[in-house]
Amino acid sequence: MIKAGIIGVTGYTGSELLRLLLNHPQVIIHKVASRSNAGQPVSLVHKHLLGQTDLVECDIDARNFTDCDVVFLAVPHGASSALAKELVAAGVKVIDLGADMRLRDIAVYQKWYQAEHAWPEILPQTVYGLPELYREEIVKSILIANPGCYPTSAILGLAPLLKAGMVQTDSIVIDSKSGVTGAGKTLTPQSHFPDMNDNLAAYKIGAHRHTPEIEQELSALAGEPVLVTFNPHLIPMNRGILSTITVKAKGTLSQKVLDDCYQEFYRHEYFIRLRNQDNLPNTKWVQGSNYCDIAPVWDERTGRIIVVSVIDNLVKGASGQAVQNMNLMLGVEETSGLKYNVIYP
Amino acid sequence: MIKAGIIGVTGYTGSELLRLLLNHPQVIIHKVASRSNAGQPVSLVHKHLLGQTDLVECDIDARNFTDCDVVFLAVPHGASSALAKELVAAGVKVIDLGADMRLRDIAVYQKWYQAEHAWPEILPQTVYGLPELYREEIVKSILIANPGCYPTSAILGLAPLLKAGMVQTDSIVIDSKSGVTGAGKTLTPQSHFPDMNDNLAAYKIGAHRHTPEIEQELSALAGEPVLVTFNPHLIPMNRGILSTITVKAKGTLSQKVLDDCYQEFYRHEYFIRLRNQDNLPNTKWVQGSNYCDIAPVWDERTGRIIVVSVIDNLVKGASGQAVQNMNLMLGVEETSGLKYNVIYP
Amino acid sequence: MIKAGIIGVTGYTGSELLRLLLNHPQVIIHKVASRSNAGQPVSLVHKHLLGQTDLVECDIDARNFTDCDVVFLAVPHGASSALAKELVAAGVKVIDLGADMRLRDIAVYQKWYQAEHAWPEILPQTVYGLPELYREEIVKSILIANPGCYPTSAILGLAPLLKAGMVQTDSIVIDSKSGVTGAGKTLTPQSHFPDMNDNLAAYKIGAHRHTPEIEQELSALAGEPVLVTFNPHLIPMNRGILSTITVKAKGTLSQKVLDDCYQEFYRHEYFIRLRNQDNLPNTKWVQGSNYCDIAPVWDERTGRIIVVSVIDNLVKGASGQAVQNMNLMLGVEETSGLKYNVIYP
Amino acid sequence: MIKAGIIGVTGYTGSELLRLLLNHPQVIIHKVASRSNAGQPVSLVHKHLLGQTDLVECDIDARNFTDCDVVFLAVPHGASSALAKELVAAGVKVIDLGADMRLRDIAVYQKWYQAEHAWPEILPQTVYGLPELYREEIVKSILIANPGCYPTSAILGLAPLLKAGMVQTDSIVIDSKSGVTGAGKTLTPQSHFPDMNDNLAAYKIGAHRHTPEIEQELSALAGEPVLVTFNPHLIPMNRGILSTITVKAKGTLSQKVLDDCYQEFYRHEYFIRLRNQDNLPNTKWVQGSNYCDIAPVWDERTGRIIVVSVIDNLVKGASGQAVQNMNLMLGVEETSGLKYNVIYP
Repeated sequence: MIKAGIIGVTGYTGSELLRLLLNHPQVIIHKVASRSNAGQPVSLVHKHLLGQTDLVECDIDARNFTDCDVVFLAVPHGASSALAKELVAAGVKVIDLGADMRLRDIAVYQKWYQAEHAWPEILPQTVYGLPELYREEIVKSILIANPGCYPTSAILGLAPLLKAGMVQTDSIVIDSKSGVTGAGKTLTPQSHFPDMNDNLAAYKIGAHRHTPEIEQELSALAGEPVLVTFNPHLIPMNRGILSTITVKAKGTLSQKVLDDCYQEFYRHEYFIRLRNQDNLPNTKWVQGSNYCDIAPVWDERTGRIIVVSVIDNLVKGASGQAVQNMNLMLGVEETSGLKYNVIYP
Repeated sequence: MIKAGIIGVTGYTGSELLRLLLNHPQVIIHKVASRSNAGQPVSLVHKHLLGQTDLVECDIDARNFTDCDVVFLAVPHGASSALAKELVAAGVKVIDLGADMRLRDIAVYQKWYQAEHAWPEILPQTVYGLPELYREEIVKSILIANPGCYPTSAILGLAPLLKAGMVQTDSIVIDSKSGVTGAGKTLTPQSHFPDMNDNLAAYKIGAHRHTPEIEQELSALAGEPVLVTFNPHLIPMNRGILSTITVKAKGTLSQKVLDDCYQEFYRHEYFIRLRNQDNLPNTKWVQGSNYCDIAPVWDERTGRIIVVSVIDNLVKGASGQAVQNMNLMLGVEETSGLKYNVIYP
Repeated sequence: MIKAGIIGVTGYTGSELLRLLLNHPQVIIHKVASRSNAGQPVSLVHKHLLGQTDLVECDIDARNFTDCDVVFLAVPHGASSALAKELVAAGVKVIDLGADMRLRDIAVYQKWYQAEHAWPEILPQTVYGLPELYREEIVKSILIANPGCYPTSAILGLAPLLKAGMVQTDSIVIDSKSGVTGAGKTLTPQSHFPDMNDNLAAYKIGAHRHTPEIEQELSALAGEPVLVTFNPHLIPMNRGILSTITVKAKGTLSQKVLDDCYQEFYRHEYFIRLRNQDNLPNTKWVQGSNYCDIAPVWDERTGRIIVVSVIDNLVKGASGQAVQNMNLMLGVEETSGLKYNVIYP
Repeated sequence: MIKAGIIGVTGYTGSELLRLLLNHPQVIIHKVASRSNAGQPVSLVHKHLLGQTDLVECDIDARNFTDCDVVFLAVPHGASSALAKELVAAGVKVIDLGADMRLRDIAVYQKWYQAEHAWPEILPQTVYGLPELYREEIVKSILIANPGCYPTSAILGLAPLLKAGMVQTDSIVIDSKSGVTGAGKTLTPQSHFPDMNDNLAAYKIGAHRHTPEIEQELSALAGEPVLVTFNPHLIPMNRGILSTITVKAKGTLSQKVLDDCYQEFYRHEYFIRLRNQDNLPNTKWVQGSNYCDIAPVWDERTGRIIVVSVIDNLVKGASGQAVQNMNLMLGVEETSGLKYNVIYP
């Protein structure tokens, strides 16, 4: 059995890691910790887990986790670098669900996060944990930067087009809609129930920190620098991201060419499900699961391709993808613990 | 592997059986059928299941299911009796999720359902599939009447008190609040999104068909006839029932006596979790799971006991309980396939 | 024009007073204040009011409000007594939306609120501002204790029965469900969107501070001491309270007798709308309005009466009722500014 | 008093017309009709209106409405042309809330609606009832084509830019999110509560019938043919549309230039409220009101302008705009009956 640790178990991604790992046939959760609840039973912190685990939280100290095979870091950005450094030094495999390891260019990190980085020299070597693009590197890695939720939906939605060179790379507009768990567990006026319920808002238009992460990966796919307009929104629902991506084609296409491109690109991917105009993805259809559902649509009138890409932000957008990465890093079947967990409605 | 069949797979309880059985380590879903979708792949009917199953629906004909070990009936009331009769005759174990087999007194059935019964002579022999009360009978049974959702929450909430003879049996008031999946998949004005969202309604006050089912089981527990006032409500959420049960104690109690009574009664029950006044159950804490969370509260001022009892109406209130019954009937560990499926939030 | 002031304008009831008074043909809002936003334009604090008002908040100091005809106090309990005392001394009429003036017995206040009272000698003289019961007193009063939201729904639902002596007064069970604005604007884990959305919870079972207020008024109606069991719940919606009240009849009644009792009692009341079993009230049907919709149902089987009573907690349960009281106190038509404001859906 | 009639009063826009007109100081609702409820009191059809109106529905026959000053048509597309023709002939002013009169080019109508038109010769003469663009024509008109909900948000969001010639007209991408009332009162699987709650879906990507309406008006503003990509979505909320519009600037701009452009264009418009990046509009801030809140944002990095435009789809997107048009046509103050009706939260 794999001995797993979770540092930062109080938030929604921490809680989701618990759900997935408790149900994982090859894993035992060995240690958990959070800043605020050291010494507390996990089932008091996460009341829905009463009866499912006797785990008690320990202090956030890397030394408590050196006997784990793998440690998941689900801590605020800025807090994971030091922990990762210490754990990697002790030979523990690390999957960081935060943003610290995702941007390979330290200058880009500093510009968007306005912060120093505790371990800049590691950045060129970290692996971006999107298995559909970097499976081989993940298998060999000991330190994974788990992708952000928005970037996962956007990059998977665009990868086939950019790889095939079918689109004008300066025409990409990504309009993303996220459930409120994406904004985290910290209490804010925007996520107070009466103010968010039956409401809808755009935020950080053209200015969200996931933008450079999306651009880094799209540029790698395109083989040239790509800038995007990324517009995020909060939706009155708990889980799910739907990204509507609009892009200008190079010349004229057809729906057939488009469908073939996506089917070919994703033909071996268990967690990618292709849909179409008559069957546009609903966020609810992936709820609780590690799927990314994608529908590419050809718009003859305007020469644009519109791609609708849907994930559960806490699963494929965070903890599920982290478990998928763990499976790859530790030599377990990639879908283990992740197969039958769509819950509908 | 157990070969399971599902008749009536289109509705929410049918879909939930698919979710639970696809993930069950000792079960293979052998056949499925529904009235409206014969010949269709299940993943077209339930779009969230794309990629999870290749099952194609067959006709609703008992003869198609005689090679199953167990068949779940998730059909409207009135439709299951004939199917059950034919399947039982063929030696197939049957779990009926509908109402046809639940009332042991045919006159009570006819009064509340205003219908003839296709197999009245079986009623005195059917087993009411509430494992916490009837485990031994379930193990030996070939035909289970799976309890209704409201009755499950109400009966489990009251059983310890009635068994102990601690309450005045003519004082029981059950106020139940249900998510909208409880009203089924049939389109109605009440469950049209704009009319139900951000809204709340009582319905069938003192007149809901689950009333006689609750009274039958409470009478059995009390050893005397019990009538209850049962008031159901629809809540703008998908899953979950919360029943607030108010009852007059015989004489004076204390919170300690009350807690001891419940802890003793449920001490061996995996799916019952006891909570308390400082920790009153939320429906979300059992979402997706087979738990029933119960908090009994002593109200010194009025001499009343208030019990808050919470389930997921589609799991412990329907399909999960059906799988629990199947596990018992077919000699599998009772919690198999049902252990780690709370999803929060 | 009536010159009105609002102290405590930041919360939901303050905001709702603004909505109603801006639209009131005989009122001008003269002054507003809150603890946290002195010096700020109201339309910055309440962003939905941009373009509707140029009001700027002043300090919370009674002396700023002595040139008003009437002042609404929408401040936390404990904070209104001193303000009310000063304003009344200056000849200003006061409507207190908080709890400080509602309980006529200081001992009861101290027991339930665990606090000293800044102006106990006024308690026997305050008028409980429920116009359907105390209209004549309100007309002559200069200080109104505006009822709580739960008590409004419960007392209006029960008043005809208690006045008529038709029920056993020791049998009253009140099960109330409230939208989340009822819990106020203060950020709490329970009202964080992802934790409350698609969820349902009971809270303060048998222990809510509105209990003594309900009992005080029911006792006055019955002419004898009445204790009730009051069970409040939070519902994933913004506005609305639905109270389901169950009570044992004295002897046998009929639906006809029951309907006559309510129609007679409320025959002159504009804001009371009677409904019935076939037409049970929805909270959405009173959204934004000052209505209280009531349906009394006779349950022959158990000899109980079940009353469903519905209000918008921010209107008839708070700010609308306060405006109704103002209209009465200041000699304006009682329904002025309150007639056509149901918004559906 | 203006004598108003409503044909098609059963749906959400009909109900919203009732709310606004009952509260309008210069209007009396003279006649109402719908296909399905002739002979029924309106307060039975719309239960929230109990006590607010004694109106009884008459048959849908234009002759019943010839004694009205103005008639609102809120009927399905295809049904209003014949009614409008008859009413106009009788000298009655008509405001059509449906799509029949909006497209001036009959060929475009036939292509997108796949239907014959009952009164094609009127199309070149109808006035598109967007007062911010066509006020002078509306004042003189007797037949108004009331704009669609999506077009209202999109056109108002883009008008200043197109009029000023600041953008590349082939670069417009409109991503719109609508509450579920926008899909109407007809029961559908997509708007069944459990399937829509906590869910989000794109639909008719690049193929929605509001596209040609948007293009017609944007072309008129730009003085050249404009094609747009229009992507609509359904959001789990009742009311509100938020359109996120992305467009490439001609050359380099600044936030200041952009703000000036919008402030100048809308400086006399009561119902347009300008906001900004730090204060992006929420749909809830316009709930129940006739406002359109707009925030234009300059994205230096990509040379794009992003405009967020928000309305209540049932008010500024339908019935409120219709009342605004009526006010203009009948010489009443434009804001009459429409000023103070934001309801929050």
